[in-house]
Amino acid sequence: MPSFTVFRGSKEGPKQDQTSKPDQLTGTQVFVKVTASGLCGTDLHYLAADVVLGHEGVGVVQDVGPDVQNLKKGDRVGWGYVHGACGACEQCIKGEDVFCAQRRLYGFDDTEQGSFAHGAVWPESHLHPIPDSMTDEVAAPLQCAGATVFTPLHDVRADETVGVIGVGGLGHLAIQFAAKMGCRVVVLSGSESKKDDAHRLGATEFIAMNKRDENTKPTPIDRLLVTTSALPDWDVIMPWMAPKGTIYPLTVSQDALKIPAMPLLLSGVAVQGSLVATRTVHREMLRFAGLHGIAPWTETFPMTVEGIQKATDALNNGKVRFRAVLLPQ
Amino acid sequence: MPSFTVFRGSKEGPKQDQTSKPDQLTGTQVFVKVTASGLCGTDLHYLAADVVLGHEGVGVVQDVGPDVQNLKKGDRVGWGYVHGACGACEQCIKGEDVFCAQRRLYGFDDTEQGSFAHGAVWPESHLHPIPDSMTDEVAAPLQCAGATVFTPLHDVRADETVGVIGVGGLGHLAIQFAAKMGCRVVVLSGSESKKDDAHRLGATEFIAMNKRDENTKPTPIDRLLVTTSALPDWDVIMPWMAPKGTIYPLTVSQDALKIPAMPLLLSGVAVQGSLVATRTVHREMLRFAGLHGIAPWTETFPMTVEGIQKATDALNNGKVRFRAVLLPQ
Repeated sequence: MPSFTVFRGSKEGPKQDQTSKPDQLTGTQVFVKVTASGLCGTDLHYLAADVVLGHEGVGVVQDVGPDVQNLKKGDRVGWGYVHGACGACEQCIKGEDVFCAQRRLYGFDDTEQGSFAHGAVWPESHLHPIPDSMTDEVAAPLQCAGATVFTPLHDVRADETVGVIGVGGLGHLAIQFAAKMGCRVVVLSGSESKKDDAHRLGATEFIAMNKRDENTKPTPIDRLLVTTSALPDWDVIMPWMAPKGTIYPLTVSQDALKIPAMPLLLSGVAVQGSLVATRTVHREMLRFAGLHGIAPWTETFPMTVEGIQKATDALNNGKVRFRAVLLPQ
Repeated sequence: MPSFTVFRGSKEGPKQDQTSKPDQLTGTQVFVKVTASGLCGTDLHYLAADVVLGHEGVGVVQDVGPDVQNLKKGDRVGWGYVHGACGACEQCIKGEDVFCAQRRLYGFDDTEQGSFAHGAVWPESHLHPIPDSMTDEVAAPLQCAGATVFTPLHDVRADETVGVIGVGGLGHLAIQFAAKMGCRVVVLSGSESKKDDAHRLGATEFIAMNKRDENTKPTPIDRLLVTTSALPDWDVIMPWMAPKGTIYPLTVSQDALKIPAMPLLLSGVAVQGSLVATRTVHREMLRFAGLHGIAPWTETFPMTVEGIQKATDALNNGKVRFRAVLLPQ
């Protein structure tokens, strides 16, 4: 039984290991040789857990099981936070596969596979074609960060104003998507340090939260993507929302959302939960990014124990501008 | 200058008073003789305030200003929580008049007018025609309670499951509307005491929250209307929501909504603020209720200081089944 290199979490931090792969793939299994992996904030939660790390995988198909229908050796594919669903339940058959009760998620299921690895075996159903124009390094962060911000935007109208809180791994992609969709893009950031970057990414307005005063008033925001791990001060943010606007808290948090009730009612504002992307939306996201040349700004690190350590340290310290990508050596 | 009787809040409780009306109406002013007024939970907040009470008014047009276009003497009309808007801003011109920055609200604006009164002067724009088939007593509670529950339902699909928390002034109307829209209606109530009522109103499932156990599992809820003043236990309710379901907290509360973030994200659930009804939706609500014979279950009280006191006491004590209506003497 052949095996390949993986990197897993452990109490002592990331360590190198081997995962075996079946000699003979069965069903719709696909063996992918990993060529790049993004590093996501969610990975930081698993550094000490006994799971293979990584869920922003890109690679090349090496081998396919007997029931694979569309993929073949040599195809470039990616996968993200969700890597399986039953395919038969009501959520699946209406295309809402991320809400399948049997969905398989990074960190919860199939933890012997991940994208911090030289290879991975996944079902064909959850491998997504990468546009030819897109490099592996660009494609990797789109698999989770891209999917996460594209979902609350994919049905936006061009005449809406999109707000983005935070210019980081998620936020810098959200700005690009919204700008290419024709929207006004209001960026809210802690300080002015990322102002030029925000405008280069496509922001039409920029607010440094540490310089705001009572006269600060952006164009009313129809959709607000909260991409920071800390939730904003709602008393400041709610008056900036357009009537019937929607707030999307996108980052995983164990805390409760504490939202003032009266402003929500009086402005008809919604707080909308959103989880990465259905497969349909995920694939449209990749096509849209390919068409418009949307690309994460990346810093690459070698996919080694030392490289992973360096990348996770940088992410933890807010030093990555804006997405770390690990490249197998 | 003629005057008419009104009932206003005061530190000593509701008291009788007089409001003068102009001899000559100007512009689009309409003088309405009040024939019935509902009593709403929001009125309880103003019992000690120096404002004319009541915002579920129904009456007959007595006189119209020179610029009134559609109403004429003898027409039956109603009005609710919102009694004015600028008519010129972006929210108004797209029909979202309840979010007009200059909207005029009960308790905030024009507090010398109300529906606990023998008459009221309002602009034609915010008086809504009452269907011929509907009595004044039925029409009155629809002006606020009806509008409030109709908004989150008016664009429901018949194949959705509607949940209603609370069988009271709002809830018992929500059940009727949702049932007539063809939806499954899951009613969540504190105990079994209102079970028969709920089924008579149109509920298809009933859950007594004090008898639930870990096996209690309603049909997954697509839209959940929270009509109780107390917010529910989200840890219990969230697993009962369908993926991408929407929760509408409908009652006015100074508290913050504390909603667990992870279940919201993992199920794609939204918490949607909603405020009474736009004029378009308000008028459709009245037509829909008229067409389907939807009617509040009412208890009537005389519109006197004593009658108001009795009605507000009953409402405060949860004794009204399900909406109090005051009738001018």
